Amino acid sequence: MTQAITVAIDAMGGDHGPHVTVPAALSALKQHSEIHIILVGLKEAIEAELSANHAEISSRLRIHHASQQVAMDESPQSALKNKKDSSMRVAINLVKTGEANACVSAGNTGALMATARFVLKTLPGIDRPAIAAVLPNKKGMTYMLDLGANADCTAEHLLQFAIMGSTLVSCVENKPRPTIGLLNIGSEDIKGNEVVKQAGELLRASHLNFYGNVEGDDIFKGTTDVVVCDGFVGNVALKTSEGLASMMAMFLTQEFKRNVFTKLMALAAMPVLKAFKKRLDPRRYNGASFLGLRGIVVKSHGGADIFSFSHAINTAVEESSSGVLQKITEQLEIEHLKPSTNKLEESTLELSAANTTELKAIA
Amino acid sequence: MTQAITVAIDAMGGDHGPHVTVPAALSALKQHSEIHIILVGLKEAIEAELSANHAEISSRLRIHHASQQVAMDESPQSALKNKKDSSMRVAINLVKTGEANACVSAGNTGALMATARFVLKTLPGIDRPAIAAVLPNKKGMTYMLDLGANADCTAEHLLQFAIMGSTLVSCVENKPRPTIGLLNIGSEDIKGNEVVKQAGELLRASHLNFYGNVEGDDIFKGTTDVVVCDGFVGNVALKTSEGLASMMAMFLTQEFKRNVFTKLMALAAMPVLKAFKKRLDPRRYNGASFLGLRGIVVKSHGGADIFSFSHAINTAVEESSSGVLQKITEQLEIEHLKPSTNKLEESTLELSAANTTELKAIA
Repeated sequence: MTQAITVAIDAMGGDHGPHVTVPAALSALKQHSEIHIILVGLKEAIEAELSANHAEISSRLRIHHASQQVAMDESPQSALKNKKDSSMRVAINLVKTGEANACVSAGNTGALMATARFVLKTLPGIDRPAIAAVLPNKKGMTYMLDLGANADCTAEHLLQFAIMGSTLVSCVENKPRPTIGLLNIGSEDIKGNEVVKQAGELLRASHLNFYGNVEGDDIFKGTTDVVVCDGFVGNVALKTSEGLASMMAMFLTQEFKRNVFTKLMALAAMPVLKAFKKRLDPRRYNGASFLGLRGIVVKSHGGADIFSFSHAINTAVEESSSGVLQKITEQLEIEHLKPSTNKLEESTLELSAANTTELKAIA
Repeated sequence: MTQAITVAIDAMGGDHGPHVTVPAALSALKQHSEIHIILVGLKEAIEAELSANHAEISSRLRIHHASQQVAMDESPQSALKNKKDSSMRVAINLVKTGEANACVSAGNTGALMATARFVLKTLPGIDRPAIAAVLPNKKGMTYMLDLGANADCTAEHLLQFAIMGSTLVSCVENKPRPTIGLLNIGSEDIKGNEVVKQAGELLRASHLNFYGNVEGDDIFKGTTDVVVCDGFVGNVALKTSEGLASMMAMFLTQEFKRNVFTKLMALAAMPVLKAFKKRLDPRRYNGASFLGLRGIVVKSHGGADIFSFSHAINTAVEESSSGVLQKITEQLEIEHLKPSTNKLEESTLELSAANTTELKAIA
């Protein structure tokens, strides 16, 4: 019954390129018997990495040569204009032509979003794609969007994000009616800035399972399945969390390294400290989804290792097999979101792509 | 040489009222030989708490009776209209009349801000007061503002916040030119939403020691002394941090409580775990400053205990003795900020006060 899923991988993307992407692809092939992988990038580099891993081309694994690479600090404009044969762009092209169901890249976020928007276009009824990711919470997992694609949002954009987030969770987590929280600075309807107040009204009038306003701490309490916010607020919340986690880890390490006695205590407590560390391991949550495009695009952390990148591939496989795209389109129809704005959006897309310079590698 | 400083304390505010505020005041009197305290609230309740603590009225401690209290969930409008003899309002009145140099309250944030604005007015050149607080970072402490007073801000407001934050740190931390970071979603000047981009231009043109854009993780890295943002973003960042710290603490506890072996490990590591906990103890950072008013107002966490509330009193003492108000006024003159907008603001202040319903208890 399982349909074959093909994932195109930007093999050159990320800080480590093929050294990470190729072994991660091989690991994903072992893990998922139903998937096929196309490794996109410099043929020689990929072949070298395959042979280093004692692997070769097979019916489930092929190479698609692409002569260029997008640099990690390259501007979206430059990537769009000068890198038409980049591994990133060609991987996205494969999604566009239907040769692949999804693509995964650890390349730079701004260039990836701009290229994906330009090549794939947005879904009818979606003005702007959003970046969604999973964070651990006290009870399970919170899906949050937007995490940095859109610094300035309207209430309608937040509604579109909510629809996409809800559909993603219903598909991937198999939850029929995920709860949606609107990130705000108080629980009452009158709280917040103007955009958020209007978004609250739109969400209350929608068919979504809208919980109401949530606050920053609700992200990690797990109050709702989905937390919706603009890309500025989402990015700040995510980065602040990374900063705090890093500081807490540093403080804990410092306290354990204070003297010979505390070092002995650390030794004694090592199994627990390892279990704690594993539970918060960000690699287990790697793979942000670009939602709202006419194709599945998953962004891996640029510094991802093999374990981490293979998790991003898993995300692409899950989204492909659960039919997220089709279901988002259906949900948009239920909410009567007209695709008219979208048409306009597409015509000005080259221009808009320039705006995605405000995109920030999300981790 | 030390000048006597008088602090008016809203003795009825907070979740625990006089049970916390009175012993904290007694502790502060012991700690600071130069200060006087006025306990504002129900005379009988305060007297009862004094006698329970074997303390009495002295040349440095007096009671100022106020017949009403502002409830923790009372709206700012109601507090302004119906609670003209509340302990909160009377404590602020004492600052207005000059009988006290500062006031401290653990009462509800929205009512406190609205009342303080109404009674004290803003400083010339300041459109809106902001809430500033101290957070620990990897190297020391970060001052951050606004943390929730203003959900919608202009670039000019952010500049004003930067001036106030810079002056606060230079006074209280004795740093001549504190570094200022503008909270954003990328380090380049072109990043961010429209307001932040404009604020970046204003800050670059100012006399402040502007570092540039900072991201969420910089708050805890300690990249700059001050981090400036609008109240929506600041509140979300603060609450998100609280949520993450709470989740991490829960995970650590769960891992140590998993079985009899891990419990033994916890026992062995207890001194380190306690030191770690102490280092992150939010009570040590209690006391948010309402900056931009013609008087010093410090907001304590509503649930503060004696140790925590006395820290908020310390904050008020430090601000009073370092002449923050005068220096903010001087700095505003250096930046040529005209007090004209301020005039307009004051005339519409009853109206604006209603908007502070969006204020949220900051912790």
